[in-house]
Amino acid sequence: MLKIGLIGFGYWGPNLARNFNQNPDLELAAICDNSSDRLTLAGKSFPETKLLQDIDVFFNGTELDVVAVATPVASHFYLAKRALMSGRHVWVEKPITDHVEQAEELIGLAMKKNKVLLVDHTYVYSGAVRKIKELIDKDELGKVFYYDSTRMNLGLFHQDVNVIWDLATHDISILDYLMPIKKVAVAASGCFYLGNGICPKSLLTIYMESETMAHINVSWISPVKMRQTLIGGTKKMVFYDDNEPSEKVKVYDKGIDFDFSKEDLYKLKVLYRVGDMRAPKLENHEALALETRHFVDCVLNGTKALTDGEAALEVVKVLVAAQKSLRSSGTLVKLE
Amino acid sequence: MLKIGLIGFGYWGPNLARNFNQNPDLELAAICDNSSDRLTLAGKSFPETKLLQDIDVFFNGTELDVVAVATPVASHFYLAKRALMSGRHVWVEKPITDHVEQAEELIGLAMKKNKVLLVDHTYVYSGAVRKIKELIDKDELGKVFYYDSTRMNLGLFHQDVNVIWDLATHDISILDYLMPIKKVAVAASGCFYLGNGICPKSLLTIYMESETMAHINVSWISPVKMRQTLIGGTKKMVFYDDNEPSEKVKVYDKGIDFDFSKEDLYKLKVLYRVGDMRAPKLENHEALALETRHFVDCVLNGTKALTDGEAALEVVKVLVAAQKSLRSSGTLVKLE
Amino acid sequence: MLKIGLIGFGYWGPNLARNFNQNPDLELAAICDNSSDRLTLAGKSFPETKLLQDIDVFFNGTELDVVAVATPVASHFYLAKRALMSGRHVWVEKPITDHVEQAEELIGLAMKKNKVLLVDHTYVYSGAVRKIKELIDKDELGKVFYYDSTRMNLGLFHQDVNVIWDLATHDISILDYLMPIKKVAVAASGCFYLGNGICPKSLLTIYMESETMAHINVSWISPVKMRQTLIGGTKKMVFYDDNEPSEKVKVYDKGIDFDFSKEDLYKLKVLYRVGDMRAPKLENHEALALETRHFVDCVLNGTKALTDGEAALEVVKVLVAAQKSLRSSGTLVKLE
Amino acid sequence: MLKIGLIGFGYWGPNLARNFNQNPDLELAAICDNSSDRLTLAGKSFPETKLLQDIDVFFNGTELDVVAVATPVASHFYLAKRALMSGRHVWVEKPITDHVEQAEELIGLAMKKNKVLLVDHTYVYSGAVRKIKELIDKDELGKVFYYDSTRMNLGLFHQDVNVIWDLATHDISILDYLMPIKKVAVAASGCFYLGNGICPKSLLTIYMESETMAHINVSWISPVKMRQTLIGGTKKMVFYDDNEPSEKVKVYDKGIDFDFSKEDLYKLKVLYRVGDMRAPKLENHEALALETRHFVDCVLNGTKALTDGEAALEVVKVLVAAQKSLRSSGTLVKLE
Repeated sequence: MLKIGLIGFGYWGPNLARNFNQNPDLELAAICDNSSDRLTLAGKSFPETKLLQDIDVFFNGTELDVVAVATPVASHFYLAKRALMSGRHVWVEKPITDHVEQAEELIGLAMKKNKVLLVDHTYVYSGAVRKIKELIDKDELGKVFYYDSTRMNLGLFHQDVNVIWDLATHDISILDYLMPIKKVAVAASGCFYLGNGICPKSLLTIYMESETMAHINVSWISPVKMRQTLIGGTKKMVFYDDNEPSEKVKVYDKGIDFDFSKEDLYKLKVLYRVGDMRAPKLENHEALALETRHFVDCVLNGTKALTDGEAALEVVKVLVAAQKSLRSSGTLVKLE
Repeated sequence: MLKIGLIGFGYWGPNLARNFNQNPDLELAAICDNSSDRLTLAGKSFPETKLLQDIDVFFNGTELDVVAVATPVASHFYLAKRALMSGRHVWVEKPITDHVEQAEELIGLAMKKNKVLLVDHTYVYSGAVRKIKELIDKDELGKVFYYDSTRMNLGLFHQDVNVIWDLATHDISILDYLMPIKKVAVAASGCFYLGNGICPKSLLTIYMESETMAHINVSWISPVKMRQTLIGGTKKMVFYDDNEPSEKVKVYDKGIDFDFSKEDLYKLKVLYRVGDMRAPKLENHEALALETRHFVDCVLNGTKALTDGEAALEVVKVLVAAQKSLRSSGTLVKLE
Repeated sequence: MLKIGLIGFGYWGPNLARNFNQNPDLELAAICDNSSDRLTLAGKSFPETKLLQDIDVFFNGTELDVVAVATPVASHFYLAKRALMSGRHVWVEKPITDHVEQAEELIGLAMKKNKVLLVDHTYVYSGAVRKIKELIDKDELGKVFYYDSTRMNLGLFHQDVNVIWDLATHDISILDYLMPIKKVAVAASGCFYLGNGICPKSLLTIYMESETMAHINVSWISPVKMRQTLIGGTKKMVFYDDNEPSEKVKVYDKGIDFDFSKEDLYKLKVLYRVGDMRAPKLENHEALALETRHFVDCVLNGTKALTDGEAALEVVKVLVAAQKSLRSSGTLVKLE
Repeated sequence: MLKIGLIGFGYWGPNLARNFNQNPDLELAAICDNSSDRLTLAGKSFPETKLLQDIDVFFNGTELDVVAVATPVASHFYLAKRALMSGRHVWVEKPITDHVEQAEELIGLAMKKNKVLLVDHTYVYSGAVRKIKELIDKDELGKVFYYDSTRMNLGLFHQDVNVIWDLATHDISILDYLMPIKKVAVAASGCFYLGNGICPKSLLTIYMESETMAHINVSWISPVKMRQTLIGGTKKMVFYDDNEPSEKVKVYDKGIDFDFSKEDLYKLKVLYRVGDMRAPKLENHEALALETRHFVDCVLNGTKALTDGEAALEVVKVLVAAQKSLRSSGTLVKLE
């Protein structure tokens, strides 16, 4: 039984606590939050867990094998570092940090201390994304040449970061998992109409190798909630709508072929292919539950984490470049 | 009774012919197409209309008050110019041309000859777009600060122009009609994976004055058909889904307010406002029928065309800038 | 080239005229309607067709091989009989008549005169219904044990017949085509709140052999348009939504199995089976165009009509029984 | 602080436990279930609650003010009676019992003992149903003349009762709440194809006074989940789709009017009225949380329960009549 301590019981923390509590290999030993109201609420659901406001007592006065960090981004680095330094395995919310160097330092530290560092890119553990990965790996889609995602809602406005750090993070981690193609450059544009320097609506273009491309449209100021992702392959195409209660993933036997027999490429004949649509059955697990089991497996058996520090660093690099582009009216920013 | 002649009986031409034929003030006098198969088809539906393959006979040997041009973009300029030069009023398909100078020449010529020049930006005449215009004019939305549109399908692939000339044209004309705010610069990125120099999927950002912005996502290679437009105002927000058979326009009494009483702008309190949604009743006319009546009114009564040469020129300027940006990996292109 | 004459150019007549006109083997020789306004409209689209107000001139003074009847139900019998008596093949709108004896007389007459009698149960010719038929014939659904349909809209209120004669007619003909199982009895209930003896909303239960059952819910007073049909098979189940622009037919690999190994049937174990969903590609023809070709084939080659008099009589028998039940508060009415 | 004890921790029990636990006026003192597995699970979420397998210890050896019964229907009567006899207030799951006399006995007992008897007809406490009630009470819909509901899914098959006791219960309680019009008679038809005497798909017609009618279509064997209710009023109509994540209730300014100026009623002119659609903002509470607060209010302040024994008895009467009709092929069964 691994003793796990959670820092942060705000918006996402309760979901972590519930999943940690339900995992048979974890004991939710402590929850730390600087709000006494939040701790009272936590106590109602987890009466046997130690509740702390003092972070030093959490780190020094509590027996813990694992620390989970679910605080605002700005404090991730400090807390994850302190957890690793004190010999604990670490689960940290996405994005790992907002600085490339900090992510690199955490990766190095985890390696040196021989501890697990898992970043909570939840979607990678969802039934829908894993099914799409399976389709790509089995070459059902053919060569995948675009990823196009719209992720919008009204709210959960952050006041310290632009929308890309909140919402595009999901898409970049999904993109990395599904299409591990080298990314070349990033451009981002966005609305700053609020006048407070925060961008609540942004559009990213990620240029990748092999003429592959990603378009990511994120917003906190949409009247309707949208989570629609299109993935174009030469054989088949996928429409993944996370708002659908069932049939989230639809695989279309559709495409465009060209008749290259003509000599003049500009007059080539376009052939549309339209066949059946199939919505494969998805695993019905809660993504966080699967992720928790995977994390436990990493800690106990040394399995490599699917969303480890390196994977998270890739996401940060893209976000940092996008942020730079966003601040210079969409100038293309090369990746290393 | 105005005698109208139509050049081009391809994809869109039959819709024009049907609407011209049903208008009580127009007589569909001639149809010209270089394909005899298309002319045979036209004859089946319009047995009393003169059918011609020879463009010279069309222009010189036929009594016509008005000429409608529904051919590929490359020939618009030549045909519209010839029609104006020969003293006819002109209806021309969108986009008017793909060169700014050509559009300017046509505008000058129409003025000199005192003829109507209407460009068929059909959506401007639809019940949905007109209702949104009415909402904006009555200040129901407050200050409008973004336009976000996704217009995708599989196909009707053009082989001579990029997707922006086909699909983004619709959005730019709608945007101009709804939000006549000065546009400052354009950036566009796109997929060129086909290897033939044609971009079938593109994403545009249009920077406008007053921190206003448009994001336009167009594609010929989507497995699903989408025509979704979001319009964000400070008072209300609109979701316009042209795929919906009814209730195409939904007006959300939703928004974000800020509590500016705090001194620190970065800590301002965000207030979400969520009220009713309303789908106003829309006029149930066919857009082309209304546009045809408007065109007749312009010709007979000298009314100014809503989508005249100047309006069409604005669209071309944006498309030309977008095309330039598209070819230079999304570099920002200023609009003079 | 068969000369066809159409009687009735009201709501549905124009669709027939357009399809007859486009069929290469038919010449739309005459249209008869007692409204001169409707004839003027017809003339606009079919300038070469003879337009008549006088039914005697239509029957006696016009060279016709085929007569199509698209008038209110009450006149179907008289007009179809006159057409057969005068030696013409007959296309008649659904329902063939509202009296069993009249339908029987028309069937007998067509046989005696050796003429084709086709009743326009259009849905039977649609891509969606034909695909479902194919699935059933290939035993993909297993034993089919229920048909459940909801067909609602606002309007097209008839003033002479109850809603069942208008809308349930569609479902009964689809049901007969898909599931040719002997029907045993019918019950129908309905709203009569209007106070004029007309029922605008009704619900039918059709008891069939082998514990099979159909539930049909029809209404002219629904604020939303619905055309949803569920078909339950022991292997798979179908959801057919005719409002969907594409993917009208969805085949669910879902079902319930029982573990009959237990001795006590009342305690049997229920096993849910949930697999993929598949939306097969449908033929993209207009149903009426296919039906017109089939009708021509019947006339020219003696092919048996899919929706002939006998098929139409089956529908009438069910409707007559439903009508009787409707008027006696849902009493079960046996079908001989 | 009221001490509440819960009997039954199966499908629905955990939701009750969670809501009771979160209510500030309730202490979840005991949970009783005859499965030790279920009790272990309960202990994980409610570590401070007493867990019991012995019902006698629950009733006699535990200090309880209130008892909640969430067991199969057959045991409701015995357990609710025992709770009332022992002086506790009672919360019992729907339907209260499956015998009219038993429901009457419980009502009498609660009155005699002066205890609260609340039956958990949850939907009556939902934001959607309460909003519709508000619209009816404010006469926005005019005279309401039909209720039409489709409630389907795959599964949660009961093995002791027909589907009407599970699903139609919801609709009858909603109907009673929204439209308290005297019910006259019931007819029900259903599938019995399983061969075990259980009907998994049924269709009810409820005849009410003033030409008002309800049609209720329920099924455990549908491949798709549906929860669609139409409510027709003379002024406006409602479409309530409980599957929608937001905008569950849509109010249509649609209807049919008649021009009664004509003398012949059968030739009256039908006028369609089509206006805006409005989706009013709904209260965003969990229905069970509101119901729990209401229950506490009844116990502490003597407020009359909205879904008390009498309301529940009305539902049972209709279900018993429907059951009788179902077993005699849909014969109309009068209500007292």
